[in-house]
Amino acid sequence: MDDVLAYLEAGRERFLRELMDWLRIPSISSAPEHRADVRRCAEVLAAHLRRIGLHRVEVLPTDGHPVVYAEWLGAPGRPTALVYGHYDVQPVDPLELWETPPFEPQVRDGLLFARGAVDDKGQVYLHCAVLEAYLATRGALPVNVKLLIEGEEEIGSPHLDAFIAAHRDRLAADVAVISDTPMYSAEHPSLCYGLRGLAYLEVEVEGPRSDLHSGSWGGVVANPALALARMLAALKDADERVMVPGFYDAVRPLTDADRAALAALPYDETAVAAELGVPCLVGERGYSPLERVWARPTLDVNGLWGGYSGPGAKTIIPARAGAKLSCRLVPDQDPDTIGRLVADYLRQVAPPGVRVTVRQLHGGRPVLTPLDTPALQAAQRAVERGFGKPPVFIREGGSIPFVATLVEQLRVPSVLLGVGLPDERTHAPNEFFHLVNFYRGMRAVAYLWDELSRLG
Amino acid sequence: MDDVLAYLEAGRERFLRELMDWLRIPSISSAPEHRADVRRCAEVLAAHLRRIGLHRVEVLPTDGHPVVYAEWLGAPGRPTALVYGHYDVQPVDPLELWETPPFEPQVRDGLLFARGAVDDKGQVYLHCAVLEAYLATRGALPVNVKLLIEGEEEIGSPHLDAFIAAHRDRLAADVAVISDTPMYSAEHPSLCYGLRGLAYLEVEVEGPRSDLHSGSWGGVVANPALALARMLAALKDADERVMVPGFYDAVRPLTDADRAALAALPYDETAVAAELGVPCLVGERGYSPLERVWARPTLDVNGLWGGYSGPGAKTIIPARAGAKLSCRLVPDQDPDTIGRLVADYLRQVAPPGVRVTVRQLHGGRPVLTPLDTPALQAAQRAVERGFGKPPVFIREGGSIPFVATLVEQLRVPSVLLGVGLPDERTHAPNEFFHLVNFYRGMRAVAYLWDELSRLG
Repeated sequence: MDDVLAYLEAGRERFLRELMDWLRIPSISSAPEHRADVRRCAEVLAAHLRRIGLHRVEVLPTDGHPVVYAEWLGAPGRPTALVYGHYDVQPVDPLELWETPPFEPQVRDGLLFARGAVDDKGQVYLHCAVLEAYLATRGALPVNVKLLIEGEEEIGSPHLDAFIAAHRDRLAADVAVISDTPMYSAEHPSLCYGLRGLAYLEVEVEGPRSDLHSGSWGGVVANPALALARMLAALKDADERVMVPGFYDAVRPLTDADRAALAALPYDETAVAAELGVPCLVGERGYSPLERVWARPTLDVNGLWGGYSGPGAKTIIPARAGAKLSCRLVPDQDPDTIGRLVADYLRQVAPPGVRVTVRQLHGGRPVLTPLDTPALQAAQRAVERGFGKPPVFIREGGSIPFVATLVEQLRVPSVLLGVGLPDERTHAPNEFFHLVNFYRGMRAVAYLWDELSRLG
Repeated sequence: MDDVLAYLEAGRERFLRELMDWLRIPSISSAPEHRADVRRCAEVLAAHLRRIGLHRVEVLPTDGHPVVYAEWLGAPGRPTALVYGHYDVQPVDPLELWETPPFEPQVRDGLLFARGAVDDKGQVYLHCAVLEAYLATRGALPVNVKLLIEGEEEIGSPHLDAFIAAHRDRLAADVAVISDTPMYSAEHPSLCYGLRGLAYLEVEVEGPRSDLHSGSWGGVVANPALALARMLAALKDADERVMVPGFYDAVRPLTDADRAALAALPYDETAVAAELGVPCLVGERGYSPLERVWARPTLDVNGLWGGYSGPGAKTIIPARAGAKLSCRLVPDQDPDTIGRLVADYLRQVAPPGVRVTVRQLHGGRPVLTPLDTPALQAAQRAVERGFGKPPVFIREGGSIPFVATLVEQLRVPSVLLGVGLPDERTHAPNEFFHLVNFYRGMRAVAYLWDELSRLG
């Protein structure tokens, strides 16, 4: 492996520069005004993949943003890995909280600041570097590799199922490799074997046809903002349990072994609270923090609006108010079922005098990979070689709809080898990536292809 | 009175044109970017008052927007009336709901559409027309008149108390006349003898230092938007009673006579609900709609914000959420006391894991004028002469802090002779003024000076 590793070592500065160039493209998938940027981001990636020697590189259309596909299939008889990542990024508001502009990447103290630095462009790019290193030094990879880099992960991958169904043969593989999850901590290189699912809803509460003077009408007209608050408040009890009937029905209970494994990982509640800037951690009664984030479903309000929010006082009863809310799901909860249950419940608890509309925006299934999966064990060895210490097996509170789709549609086991860290402010202002893991991640992935080649 | 009335009749088109010019000035007192417009609006009014023959016309500074003062004191031995109005207007958002731009006045079917058309520029302007008519036809008014037209009513008149204290002598009067309240209906010319007070608060709920990924952190971090919803939901019970301890302590109970008088006024709940576009009216259990709006305190959420409200899905736990809320008060509730009670309660019901800040933005006292006040009875005769039918005595759900200040600081009885109508969308998009009442109002005010002159 010396040749490949030396190539990676020698290219460090250039890899970083190329990544920074790519990060300058504001590929915000949820923003219609950035549609052309998203497309350009895909084209730039495709051009890069062609340049480093991948084959059949294409920017494939979907009904939304395109998918970048590439492959190298020159290792017949060896396993085929399908590498998944995404080139789209989250929105950047509130923009004023960014210390440097989100699309002007900057390195400070070994940290690379930019929207998408770690989620997920940085991690996609480290795969590119490893592919380049093998192809440049040996002219070949030890396994067959297919790349599927999508542009809609941050909006819930709405067209990915259809895309996978349409390209099932092309995407056939023995294992999927995804680098889009964080490590447990800077001291714990990690392999993730579980992801939560997602059910995302938008609720709108409508009252009077237009905003009303709160003096003239206060006392006879139901207040949509207050009605919304009441409906949201009814979603959880004081123990932070979700009150929606049926919500927990399909939840797979934690076994004693599960709980013991989670309890073995260090978790300093006080330190976490201090890092986040909250007075204390809060969550479902009867479960530890790790259990709550990895193995229990949750419900969060992601946004809230209605009436006047400008400076000073405006004395109105707002015509409407709305909220976005989402549930993180665990096996075996079904996103559609949960979305429907929550929507029904919201309509049911709505007070009189308002009209309620609930829309399901998107969903994703939860995933668990059995720990004895051979590819996962190969990845364990690769991470140990790349990071110099064995990984811990973790789960992740977030969702990657693609992984659920893979498991369902292609029946492929997945290896979640992510090298982000939990403090890197993904989805928030001042996202960054610890560059040390950008480089360690390259080593681990280089070893991964080596380890996987021995399975076939 | 024929001379004065004929002058008003002949000037109709010109008065309307002049009002429309004045409405073009976007005097939004709450918007710092309109500070110069607010000033210009005052200057234009002052110039007009000078032109029609008022004396000692001044644009007097306050610590906020200026007050326009003018007087005509050529009737020694006769009563002095202090006319109060305001030249500032409410904000105009949501701007996209206006059918024509708020500051491009337009007459359609006898309705004048513009921000401020009825609240309160139209009603201030009809007073100007009457003063002009007397001075142009007779060179004199039958009473002494002082005008105080302020620029901060829509933000709660924060500097008016200090202004009145500083100009107490100049403002001395026997009666205050205010045209800033609606008539009961198009068929009911009205005199208002009661106003509700106001306590306006802003609450902010802070959680993590920045927005967090709801997958990675959902389950351990208190959600500020949900915490806010819970706090707001705790403010009222299912009977729409305010749950804040002590809230109703100072409320003067309705007497049987009060209730009978209110019950005598026609009120069609179904028609009101249809007009507003709501499924039904809602309010405090055990009270009729008119009782709830005129004689019972209320609590409304005026605005709500937090997290992501753009298109699509963003999976965050927002760092903060906030709301504006206000209580309408009735005698003998005190705005500071109520504000403090609500603030204390909000802090008390806040769930763990968040920090709560509550600020009192402003307040105003409730007012009741005894029905046997001579000036009120003179106004009754004037309205009957101006409108051709006797007025009903009503109360108003809104607040005019100035009136409370007058009663407290100057011990002056107030006549609330407003000619707006409840459907005119004050504070909302597409505000308008029924022009028929613009002209009838002029006649009534012309008769008012005549009637008041007989009291002295």
